[in-house]
Amino acid sequence: MSGFMFEKRVQSLRNKFEGLGVDAVWIIQPENRRYLAGFTAVDGQLTESSGSLLISLDHALLLTDSRYSIQAKQEATGFEVMTYTEGVINALPAVFDRLHTRRLGFEAGYLIWELHHKAQEKASHNSPAVELIPLFGVVEEMREIKEQQELEAISKSAQLMGEVLSQVIGDLKPHQRERDVAWRIETRIREHGGDGAAFPPIVASGPNGALPHAVPTERELAEGEPIIVDVGAILDGYCSDMTRTIFLGEPPAYFREIYRTVREAQLYAIASLRPGMETTAVDSMAREIIREAGFGDFFVHSLGHGIGLATHEGPAVAPIKPKVLQEGMVFTIEPGVYIPGKGGVRLEQMVTFENGISRVLTNNENFYSF
Amino acid sequence: MSGFMFEKRVQSLRNKFEGLGVDAVWIIQPENRRYLAGFTAVDGQLTESSGSLLISLDHALLLTDSRYSIQAKQEATGFEVMTYTEGVINALPAVFDRLHTRRLGFEAGYLIWELHHKAQEKASHNSPAVELIPLFGVVEEMREIKEQQELEAISKSAQLMGEVLSQVIGDLKPHQRERDVAWRIETRIREHGGDGAAFPPIVASGPNGALPHAVPTERELAEGEPIIVDVGAILDGYCSDMTRTIFLGEPPAYFREIYRTVREAQLYAIASLRPGMETTAVDSMAREIIREAGFGDFFVHSLGHGIGLATHEGPAVAPIKPKVLQEGMVFTIEPGVYIPGKGGVRLEQMVTFENGISRVLTNNENFYSF
Repeated sequence: MSGFMFEKRVQSLRNKFEGLGVDAVWIIQPENRRYLAGFTAVDGQLTESSGSLLISLDHALLLTDSRYSIQAKQEATGFEVMTYTEGVINALPAVFDRLHTRRLGFEAGYLIWELHHKAQEKASHNSPAVELIPLFGVVEEMREIKEQQELEAISKSAQLMGEVLSQVIGDLKPHQRERDVAWRIETRIREHGGDGAAFPPIVASGPNGALPHAVPTERELAEGEPIIVDVGAILDGYCSDMTRTIFLGEPPAYFREIYRTVREAQLYAIASLRPGMETTAVDSMAREIIREAGFGDFFVHSLGHGIGLATHEGPAVAPIKPKVLQEGMVFTIEPGVYIPGKGGVRLEQMVTFENGISRVLTNNENFYSF
Repeated sequence: MSGFMFEKRVQSLRNKFEGLGVDAVWIIQPENRRYLAGFTAVDGQLTESSGSLLISLDHALLLTDSRYSIQAKQEATGFEVMTYTEGVINALPAVFDRLHTRRLGFEAGYLIWELHHKAQEKASHNSPAVELIPLFGVVEEMREIKEQQELEAISKSAQLMGEVLSQVIGDLKPHQRERDVAWRIETRIREHGGDGAAFPPIVASGPNGALPHAVPTERELAEGEPIIVDVGAILDGYCSDMTRTIFLGEPPAYFREIYRTVREAQLYAIASLRPGMETTAVDSMAREIIREAGFGDFFVHSLGHGIGLATHEGPAVAPIKPKVLQEGMVFTIEPGVYIPGKGGVRLEQMVTFENGISRVLTNNENFYSF
């Protein structure tokens, strides 16, 4: 990403200040920080920030501690790096003064209550007092519309993941353990040049597949059972996410039917996608197909989610909170059916729009046509 | 961990209710949740909770959604699992009624502002109204004193990490890339039966070692440069953390001197440790040695941190916020000196107390005696 890109993003954010009623914003969410400044540090734990951005109309500051200041200066070239020694809260008064802050926007969906409480004390004791204004997903919303460079980065990440997944699926055999298969996937992601797995791979066989967020176990793969493999990679900071359900040997009739239903729901939703549609409409299209086939009670999650610097970001493609789909959005379509005690089927593709219709970014391999 | 252990922990927490002025607590922090209930699910992202605990004097509820309810029932056997369909916030009123909650404690150091804001609305519109009371590190403080079973689990994690690290260090050669070495460490952790790395391994050679939180790069290891290797494993949920600084070939005199200083600071601090000492006193002991050797400006972080279910937990061993060290605590002692542009030396051991003196949990291998 070029420095110019970050400058443009910061400018877009500043253009929103008036509408938001703020004269500066405080950004601590790691992906938002990376998106605006190019600073790639991650936070080891939620309560351990590796830095904050303080952006006013005429200043762009990156506040961090001495562990990260060298990296911050190397990466966030459009930002002035300020190194604090006693935490970001104690650094705020000096920043308020310098930026002439009166109304500071903060990330309401990320800032911890205690940190807000302490910042509030500094803000109200400041002279003149500073008002803290909650912002709800402002940078997250900017991130929903991907730039061309981002689309390419996401596409590469999806391609890498697809190659790895095809290899691993090609090697699947009965008696392999879920945990070993998951580890092989992580290994191959690195061997193919990925930064790492976007999340711990899910390999859930037989009854374990009934847990949508199953953690791989010592269970051995067996013939005739559905095996859900849900994986993602990070490449140059951008995430991919895809799921296949695999059978070794002959699938039982019951799961063939489920598979057909899930795949139909997925294909129908993908084919119907158009910019301008509401997310809830897409979700209900897929959900309706699954409901009509009699499995409605077993599709227990949303149809999909946006993806980019984070594995899960906007737009959510869910039964609630409608949002209009737009060109530049990238999201998953992943219907699933989960039968307690027996197993599950989930199929996940990443899609975007091109020339007014959907374009699938993940490969088209490893699907059955029962 | 046996069910009895969780029951005991929950009872200890309940015994604090009166002092805290609450009649129930809401626990969302993943390690706290695991500590109290045995529920091992992790949160994919901060904003994606896999469940909450609601504990009153006579009820122990685990609230989660359908993706996690099977796992919750299997693992949290001492808790009643309630499955919500529209998020935890919307589930609160029914819980308030059932538990007769009037004063609900929440984790001030973990709950996001927006979630608190929404919970506050439900609480104040409840009849009778519920008051939300901020709790500061209550369960975290319980976790600081490890039970015997926990000490054994941490010790095993440290032992595994030590074996892996010794193997990897034994194989270090010039021209290996930082990134490849880091990956080999992750691989070996799994091969030795670990759940995974506790954090992305740091392999920082030459000038890269001047960044305490360096991310492994494509840089090749070279002779005569310090190479910092900082690694940790998770085994049965418990973390380890250790650091060695390695030289291939002859170390330059300048870094020999730094190494001697850092090692002396570490050994002196470890030998001086006694239950009843303050964390700040231990920090200043090590810091003073480094300062006297003329490197005071280059020891840019705290001396150590507690470790257990999380890599970083209490007690912090730092220049500020004194805390009395007690039997049962497990923490790191990791002085470091970082010379911008040249490199760094950090040495890290995990320690606890036994019979009134310190006991080192990590192995004693891969130290130089210059």
